[in-house]
Amino acid sequence: MCELLGMSANVPTDICFSFAGLSSRGGETGPHVDGWGIVFYEQSGVREFKDYMPSCRSALSKFLSEYPIKSHIVISHIRQANVGAVGLENTHPFQRELWGQAWVYAHNGQVPSATELESTRFLPIGSTDSERIFCWLMDSLAARFDAPPEPQVWAEYLSTLCESINTQGVFNLLISNGKALFCFCSTKLCWVTRRAPFGLAHLSDKDLSIDFAKVTTDHDVVTMIATQPLTDNETWNSLAPGECRLFVEGESVWGKCTKAVLHASTGSQYAEKS
Amino acid sequence: MCELLGMSANVPTDICFSFAGLSSRGGETGPHVDGWGIVFYEQSGVREFKDYMPSCRSALSKFLSEYPIKSHIVISHIRQANVGAVGLENTHPFQRELWGQAWVYAHNGQVPSATELESTRFLPIGSTDSERIFCWLMDSLAARFDAPPEPQVWAEYLSTLCESINTQGVFNLLISNGKALFCFCSTKLCWVTRRAPFGLAHLSDKDLSIDFAKVTTDHDVVTMIATQPLTDNETWNSLAPGECRLFVEGESVWGKCTKAVLHASTGSQYAEKS
Repeated sequence: MCELLGMSANVPTDICFSFAGLSSRGGETGPHVDGWGIVFYEQSGVREFKDYMPSCRSALSKFLSEYPIKSHIVISHIRQANVGAVGLENTHPFQRELWGQAWVYAHNGQVPSATELESTRFLPIGSTDSERIFCWLMDSLAARFDAPPEPQVWAEYLSTLCESINTQGVFNLLISNGKALFCFCSTKLCWVTRRAPFGLAHLSDKDLSIDFAKVTTDHDVVTMIATQPLTDNETWNSLAPGECRLFVEGESVWGKCTKAVLHASTGSQYAEKS
Repeated sequence: MCELLGMSANVPTDICFSFAGLSSRGGETGPHVDGWGIVFYEQSGVREFKDYMPSCRSALSKFLSEYPIKSHIVISHIRQANVGAVGLENTHPFQRELWGQAWVYAHNGQVPSATELESTRFLPIGSTDSERIFCWLMDSLAARFDAPPEPQVWAEYLSTLCESINTQGVFNLLISNGKALFCFCSTKLCWVTRRAPFGLAHLSDKDLSIDFAKVTTDHDVVTMIATQPLTDNETWNSLAPGECRLFVEGESVWGKCTKAVLHASTGSQYAEKS
């Protein structure tokens, strides 16, 4: 399995603190040693950093933990390889251009039947089930809409695609086009929104604290999304299995939960949630 | 204008030495202060680094000058903005996936009529003429070939597209799909191939030398391509205006020169070259 980290903010915000926590899970406090990646949106452009080294030992991840890149949307992933060799071509997040927008995606889980998904316009470069699903999602979006619709419109459509993939395996997902950040919870995903009055946060994975009151203004709204809570003194909200949410400028603007989601891989049936 | 740097090698090779020279031109020995980018191919995957800071003052470019990433193809670019604001979305190299391959492109020059180029499948994210041309090239390749042809086949086709663009302005180009590196010279581009016996190289832009004999084997073949020679004690070959070349594993495997190239922007007619 892998771990996901996402951020949506209404002001350009750096992610050094949270990334330091996530990086520790890549070989130190967690077993995700098969590479890591992070993508920062800055206006309509993106910056992508990837390494196949464990994040806890990567010189590049150390650089990023200390180099503040201010962004309004971030997607990051640390990998424990299941399908596909260790290598850059199999390292999340994956990226494709659609409608003149940079789409970025990272996945946690396994969907064995992804090999049967066919796409024509977007093709995988590596050999993971994750990238194959991404290509299929992008193909489906391109086929459905000629031009970029409003975020809630593509999110609604994407949620139906996610529900269908989710019946085939484990599919925790973060995806963005730089305007909005969409997440889908298959088994495990949680989020916290920070806003005034800001307080002290302490990482779960290393003894590191930050006083957000000192680095924010009253106007700032920042949501963090992660596989597991990154801090041990804040209340993180869990997404229910089958639940998806859309974040714009730090706020949860839309969400829905499928009535029932059957995980073929485990056979377990999750409870209905309104 | 901007500056280009490319590398093709038969063994994974780092580019720290040459990149240190190029970086100096981004604000120190050259006026290209409007951002920079570099893409490393590692197997079929790529690593991309971009910054809108001048490369001579960028913490990230300093990190890369000292952090050896071993790659068989590299494309880099430092920018002096003409068309499009300073920002990541307008920072070269640009990247798109076609046929399950990561295509990477950087351009030096200006092609004012690029605004008239239309593409449908690949659309620009930023506002440069360079990215618009790239999208048009990718659209054209996708329309011409259903599957990835051999490098010399796409290079031959690409050369005809480049010739047509080149009549509209200045179009020095580096492009790669990770298998081969194609370059087209509109006005200025040169290259040097390093092979055994290796010797000492000294940068033109800073007092830095390297003894390649100490960091290579007799088998290594490494070609560097640049807008202007990066070293002052090696013989760089100049490409003629209208000349293109294809490099695979460090070797020049194919090339051609258009008989005559008229630069509409300058009105100058270049001499015929066999």
